[in-house]
Amino acid sequence: MALWIRNGTVVNSDLMQPADVIVENGEIFPGGVKYGNSKLVMPGGIDPHTHLELKFMGELSVDDYYIGSRAALAGGTTMFIDFVMPTKKQTPLEAYKEWRKKADAKVCCDYALSVAITTYNDEVVKQMNTLVQPEYGINSFKFFMAYADYMLNDGEFYHAMRRCAQLGALARVHAENGYVILEKQKELLDKGVTGPEGHPQSRPEEVEEEATNRACILAVQANCPLYVVHVMSKGAAAAVAHHRRRGAVIFGEAIAAALASDGEHYFNENWSHAAAHVMSPPLSLDPTTKDILMDFLACGQLQLVGTDNCTFSSAQKAVGLNNFTKIPNGVNGIEDRMSIIWERGYGKIDAMRFVEITSSMAAKIFNIYPRKGKIAVGSDADIIIWDPLKTRVISSSTHHQACDYNIFEGMLVHGVCEMTISRGKVVWENGELKVEQGSGRFVPLPPFSPYCFATIPQRAQVCCPYFKVMLKT
Amino acid sequence: MALWIRNGTVVNSDLMQPADVIVENGEIFPGGVKYGNSKLVMPGGIDPHTHLELKFMGELSVDDYYIGSRAALAGGTTMFIDFVMPTKKQTPLEAYKEWRKKADAKVCCDYALSVAITTYNDEVVKQMNTLVQPEYGINSFKFFMAYADYMLNDGEFYHAMRRCAQLGALARVHAENGYVILEKQKELLDKGVTGPEGHPQSRPEEVEEEATNRACILAVQANCPLYVVHVMSKGAAAAVAHHRRRGAVIFGEAIAAALASDGEHYFNENWSHAAAHVMSPPLSLDPTTKDILMDFLACGQLQLVGTDNCTFSSAQKAVGLNNFTKIPNGVNGIEDRMSIIWERGYGKIDAMRFVEITSSMAAKIFNIYPRKGKIAVGSDADIIIWDPLKTRVISSSTHHQACDYNIFEGMLVHGVCEMTISRGKVVWENGELKVEQGSGRFVPLPPFSPYCFATIPQRAQVCCPYFKVMLKT
Amino acid sequence: MALWIRNGTVVNSDLMQPADVIVENGEIFPGGVKYGNSKLVMPGGIDPHTHLELKFMGELSVDDYYIGSRAALAGGTTMFIDFVMPTKKQTPLEAYKEWRKKADAKVCCDYALSVAITTYNDEVVKQMNTLVQPEYGINSFKFFMAYADYMLNDGEFYHAMRRCAQLGALARVHAENGYVILEKQKELLDKGVTGPEGHPQSRPEEVEEEATNRACILAVQANCPLYVVHVMSKGAAAAVAHHRRRGAVIFGEAIAAALASDGEHYFNENWSHAAAHVMSPPLSLDPTTKDILMDFLACGQLQLVGTDNCTFSSAQKAVGLNNFTKIPNGVNGIEDRMSIIWERGYGKIDAMRFVEITSSMAAKIFNIYPRKGKIAVGSDADIIIWDPLKTRVISSSTHHQACDYNIFEGMLVHGVCEMTISRGKVVWENGELKVEQGSGRFVPLPPFSPYCFATIPQRAQVCCPYFKVMLKT
Amino acid sequence: MALWIRNGTVVNSDLMQPADVIVENGEIFPGGVKYGNSKLVMPGGIDPHTHLELKFMGELSVDDYYIGSRAALAGGTTMFIDFVMPTKKQTPLEAYKEWRKKADAKVCCDYALSVAITTYNDEVVKQMNTLVQPEYGINSFKFFMAYADYMLNDGEFYHAMRRCAQLGALARVHAENGYVILEKQKELLDKGVTGPEGHPQSRPEEVEEEATNRACILAVQANCPLYVVHVMSKGAAAAVAHHRRRGAVIFGEAIAAALASDGEHYFNENWSHAAAHVMSPPLSLDPTTKDILMDFLACGQLQLVGTDNCTFSSAQKAVGLNNFTKIPNGVNGIEDRMSIIWERGYGKIDAMRFVEITSSMAAKIFNIYPRKGKIAVGSDADIIIWDPLKTRVISSSTHHQACDYNIFEGMLVHGVCEMTISRGKVVWENGELKVEQGSGRFVPLPPFSPYCFATIPQRAQVCCPYFKVMLKT
Repeated sequence: MALWIRNGTVVNSDLMQPADVIVENGEIFPGGVKYGNSKLVMPGGIDPHTHLELKFMGELSVDDYYIGSRAALAGGTTMFIDFVMPTKKQTPLEAYKEWRKKADAKVCCDYALSVAITTYNDEVVKQMNTLVQPEYGINSFKFFMAYADYMLNDGEFYHAMRRCAQLGALARVHAENGYVILEKQKELLDKGVTGPEGHPQSRPEEVEEEATNRACILAVQANCPLYVVHVMSKGAAAAVAHHRRRGAVIFGEAIAAALASDGEHYFNENWSHAAAHVMSPPLSLDPTTKDILMDFLACGQLQLVGTDNCTFSSAQKAVGLNNFTKIPNGVNGIEDRMSIIWERGYGKIDAMRFVEITSSMAAKIFNIYPRKGKIAVGSDADIIIWDPLKTRVISSSTHHQACDYNIFEGMLVHGVCEMTISRGKVVWENGELKVEQGSGRFVPLPPFSPYCFATIPQRAQVCCPYFKVMLKT
Repeated sequence: MALWIRNGTVVNSDLMQPADVIVENGEIFPGGVKYGNSKLVMPGGIDPHTHLELKFMGELSVDDYYIGSRAALAGGTTMFIDFVMPTKKQTPLEAYKEWRKKADAKVCCDYALSVAITTYNDEVVKQMNTLVQPEYGINSFKFFMAYADYMLNDGEFYHAMRRCAQLGALARVHAENGYVILEKQKELLDKGVTGPEGHPQSRPEEVEEEATNRACILAVQANCPLYVVHVMSKGAAAAVAHHRRRGAVIFGEAIAAALASDGEHYFNENWSHAAAHVMSPPLSLDPTTKDILMDFLACGQLQLVGTDNCTFSSAQKAVGLNNFTKIPNGVNGIEDRMSIIWERGYGKIDAMRFVEITSSMAAKIFNIYPRKGKIAVGSDADIIIWDPLKTRVISSSTHHQACDYNIFEGMLVHGVCEMTISRGKVVWENGELKVEQGSGRFVPLPPFSPYCFATIPQRAQVCCPYFKVMLKT
Repeated sequence: MALWIRNGTVVNSDLMQPADVIVENGEIFPGGVKYGNSKLVMPGGIDPHTHLELKFMGELSVDDYYIGSRAALAGGTTMFIDFVMPTKKQTPLEAYKEWRKKADAKVCCDYALSVAITTYNDEVVKQMNTLVQPEYGINSFKFFMAYADYMLNDGEFYHAMRRCAQLGALARVHAENGYVILEKQKELLDKGVTGPEGHPQSRPEEVEEEATNRACILAVQANCPLYVVHVMSKGAAAAVAHHRRRGAVIFGEAIAAALASDGEHYFNENWSHAAAHVMSPPLSLDPTTKDILMDFLACGQLQLVGTDNCTFSSAQKAVGLNNFTKIPNGVNGIEDRMSIIWERGYGKIDAMRFVEITSSMAAKIFNIYPRKGKIAVGSDADIIIWDPLKTRVISSSTHHQACDYNIFEGMLVHGVCEMTISRGKVVWENGELKVEQGSGRFVPLPPFSPYCFATIPQRAQVCCPYFKVMLKT
Repeated sequence: MALWIRNGTVVNSDLMQPADVIVENGEIFPGGVKYGNSKLVMPGGIDPHTHLELKFMGELSVDDYYIGSRAALAGGTTMFIDFVMPTKKQTPLEAYKEWRKKADAKVCCDYALSVAITTYNDEVVKQMNTLVQPEYGINSFKFFMAYADYMLNDGEFYHAMRRCAQLGALARVHAENGYVILEKQKELLDKGVTGPEGHPQSRPEEVEEEATNRACILAVQANCPLYVVHVMSKGAAAAVAHHRRRGAVIFGEAIAAALASDGEHYFNENWSHAAAHVMSPPLSLDPTTKDILMDFLACGQLQLVGTDNCTFSSAQKAVGLNNFTKIPNGVNGIEDRMSIIWERGYGKIDAMRFVEITSSMAAKIFNIYPRKGKIAVGSDADIIIWDPLKTRVISSSTHHQACDYNIFEGMLVHGVCEMTISRGKVVWENGELKVEQGSGRFVPLPPFSPYCFATIPQRAQVCCPYFKVMLKT
């Protein structure tokens, strides 16, 4: 049975026009141009950065794949990319299998995976090679420059990026200077600073800026495309833009939390309120940062928006009651991301750019465009209907996530997702979810995305003076 | 009779894939996906900045609308936007009519017009209003900050941009500080510097940088989208990027000459050779500028490439033999633009970005996308087949332009336009042109292009602190 | 009779050490090193930018040369540089003579003059030549880029700077885009915005940034040293720093008001309060600007601090009650400048840098160092004793200026001037002034200050690519 | 017996005037103002960065303390600061004693020491504390971010700077990313790149820029003044300037080699010629770097100039004949530094700034001003007479250093040191050295130099948002 979406304004990243859309067998068919109205028919959002059901800092995040994907759909997001995070005892492959198992059983929308590389040795390199094969569908690896348990040193990180470049896999990075943070944490605890206000003080935004700059330079040296996750500060955003201007293939991801909140919450007198905002890198203490990050997105110097959704209950957060370094890190976002971007992008981005940064760019970078990220004949029917004239107030009392707070609590947002269609099925309508656990599919991501890799082979010759020199000899 | 383009790789600004294309009645029909090969099937180029058959500095440019448009097609460009340049005695409307008359009779490809505003008064304002009506099809006006005959002062320019914003017309600007240039010219002639080497000395690139910065700030104040024509220096490019980063709606156009040549030619001992390169703003004396401009295009901080094609014969140039300020300004480019960008963008941009900066972005900005600038069902069949593996050497002995020199003489370029299809007709194949004088059509450009204007009404509220303040009061 | 200052810490711009100072016949004699204490013995302040007794916008500023110079001394400033402002009917020379006459009769401390060039023609050029002669003692001229009555166009300004460079005279500039301001004023009044809040809206800080950048580029082109008066915004400060980095000889002056106040006052509900803050360029609407300007002073990218002291009574300000463009522009500062810098520079500058930016740099730039600006044998005994441990609260009820408000009202400042010695005489002690009207002397300023001009002749050869090119031909 | 220097122009960092100078008992006495001439009487140079007689990479540098200090005097440098470099087996204190012993016996001019910290543990921390005591006279420690044998990780470096800040000792840093360099070296050797051209390829200037930025951010976090040795690239210089602008107490040292040479030499076909230029960070491959570094010095964003003098004979360099990583690193400079700066600073700096960057600033930073770095009554009589009108050609055939090449070979320089006076004795005149081995004295450097530390205690409160926050809690 076909679905006929009438009289909307279809928005793609390059075009906005009145059109009908017909959906059948989960795919889009041509619908002809009709009378448009103010409702916008757009590709479903893609959240490129989530951590559902993650065991982190001793606690299991409360949004599992079922709850998390439902919340995503309720907010207009029809696909997400989650991270496989191997423990110290696991190989990447073992972790990958564990992740597939828990996710496949529960997801209600399409998803894909990215694998974190938390130790680096020959065996890991071999498994990276395996994971980019079609049956595993991995085309990106994530590296940490912070967290004692996860971080690689610069030599390992550089070497791993050389490897990624050969495999056609994108390198993703969590950029903070882990060494300095460990020293700062000690200093603060020694001084008796144990509350959530210690969190941003132990991770000054300059250490994010520093590590981001370092990661970009290492990536240029390795001639590997780089994707900086959660750019939280203006310094880090400027570093991304700076290296892009010099020819580097670098993508910068903002997250919903950073576009609508700031670090003042860490000083809230209510411990739970403050702890709810603990994530790393922390929300910026500079209240102008959120506007500036949106400006970078608007002018194209940041490219897309994720969430780093990783939610813990207030009870779980309370584990760090006497020691801020033990508060499980993470905030919500998977449900509200689309609304946040619409609201905060008002006057800065048009609907086409909205589609680009919420959906198309992720599809392009992760090599599934135009199957995802576009309303076009033959594309997957992951579609939302967006009413830009409606408003809603975000609240934990109405959201679909499992956590008992919402960092956007009370925020009035324009732009409401009226209907969500996942693979051709209406799954969200009139404020009701109609989903089936496990109905979502894993989307394998092929390597060598042209958006990341098309110019890589030639870059050694034209972009970097050092590479040029190398050719000369 | 339909045209079936088989086994190519179709490239649009957002996608590159093996596909067939069927053309009928000047329009594109779906062709299904087939086996692709290395040949690229791309939207025909759009040159957003030409001066064909222009009487300038006492001379008539030699590429008339017939010759110029033929040359365009031979190089893979299927549409151009020319400037109506009213003399001091003409009103904009009179000039517009003159331009339509001479162009319509001769063009072999589609074209549109942009109108220069060279005096500013109430009557001119009235005519700007008229010209944006559908029957005239103007959606941009150009302003000069240099040239005694053309330049407006900052007050007039600001006021005119306020007007443009209301009309939905883009403001375009030639940015150089005309006052300083006049003084410099006098100084140099006084010192006895009369040759072409005086040209760049009278127009130091800092005066372009200065005026570009000024124009951007005026546009922000007027809340009017701005298009900076021929960004020639790294300082000017940086100014454009700087103001975009602060939220301004500004587009920066590089030109072919600036991407492949530099100001050393002005010191060539052969007077004609030197004079052939005289254009304003001049080619940069810094040999690294051409690479840097390409980097700005690659990372998205410049948006598109034109040519400022305005060619004079060596005999015409010789009018300035004893006084460089009398050398008619202008260089070629309309034919070679596509090749220059392909060659100079090697390793910096992929084929999709190539399409964006040579064609789609112009179509978007001037509000004719996706009819132009895209290979899609229903779009105009302005198509080129590009062989990236072939090479050619640029030369005045083989080019199709009327001028007796070519500033890219002897340059080996990769990427050759094998076939050009204009409105569904094959007009260039196997090195042969098959065109008919006057067969091209005038393309009216509708106002309020969403790429320029979608965010303008809201910007006063969110982007500029001063506007914010205004609301507060 | 000699004066023996014992047990202090003598601070010069390059050194801080315990030492005694002996003063005789208005000069300093060596005193030997003794036991220092926390009191600082420093060169008296030099305010490089005042408008005492100025008829401006129809009103006569209330601090005349007697009152103004007394206030200066009470605050630790022992010399000031005032501006000769010719009316439209006056020649620079006539105005100079008028100024000398009114000032000589009243000043209680040393002073010098700078002449504004408000019309530009051959006669004016001739008089500039005269004014730099020793009997007139002028070594700087000021130019306006705003104010309909004063502004020159870019061609005139450039030409005048060429002239200054030949005369060894420093060019000083009021940098705002006057054309845009006139348009904005009209717009605002048309909209019914007539109150003081219209003032900053008619002069957005971007138009200061723009003009500052323009002035710097014109100065580089003219190879003339430039002094930007009252840098009020971070954009303007960045422009100064940017051009200094490229080799330009440019000095940037902050003013006391900009270091301690901001534009929020323009929206104060009390009309008088708001009007009291009206000056041009306006105080920045961005509350972080004051810190950033101090940072520029600390790292050496702004060089000195003036006041633009030009005070009007509340009654005089009320002339603009129904039209903000008629409010006489000007604020206080001559008395409190030293305290403001000490307070705001806390932790950013040490006492040596304090001396440099409050005194020595002005003496160097205006070519009277080390006679002024230094505690050294043979220097003029213009000395202050500063107690960094004392505090005071600034208030119009206690200040020595004639105006009935103080824009720093209620501000608690550390650092109090305990004693002021002018030419060897104690003129301020224990909160008491002991001055004699007319006792101050005019200090002629010799041209070709080495701090401004030592490198100018060679700069054409090494700093600017365009000049280099010129030599080549 | 007194020495009377007549009719010169005495130049200090803040003043230039005709004056006589009388020298007695190694000190300066007042000489009265006389008729000056073009000869400049200036404070002797201070080279803040040398490695005489250093065992490095298996070889002993050929300029020992006798030869090196003689060469210094011949070039107008009357003091140098050498580095104590402990081996892996030595404690800092042991190394210090070894250094004192070898230097004291041989030096012909005054010198001081800075101690490198190449391992970091509790014992080292204890010895740092000892070394800043007056009997040892150390007020700075140097840290390495590169060289497997020397480098600390970021955590150790940060911790050590916290310690330095408490001791009143300046942190100095060699900033390059050692991890990346090691990987690059392996890659290049694997590819068969074994010659000196491999050297710059293994140390791209971006890895210097990166580490410089990182060091600055770590220093800000540690609230410790930082001195970046040998800033070799424009990126590193920009990083220094960037953090100074944000309020950091950072000093950047250029070196003579970087102001007059570039990396093209590494590709010289003569192996010895190429190897002679091997130093780290390498000379920039960008030929414009030398001009840009001079611009940074001119505008005050770099502060002083050293040499990193560390010379090896061609025979010693040949150890790396088959492996560029084994070529002992180091170039000459101690003799020619003053001439290089004079020549390269032509038109960019005046004689006062010349004195500042060659002498006074080093004296200020290392806390021996005005005993050194100034011509003033009571200062040490370390004086040079400089003839700016004379020229000489630099050559290894005439220099006084022990190495058999000179990287400035053949360079014509204006500005010749005609006479050098060390502690009141004429040691260089008419091209003749008259020195006595061991006559130079060790100059102990007291901690807490006001130029470095005066604002440190307050900075936590005013400069860094994070510190501010800390106070709040």
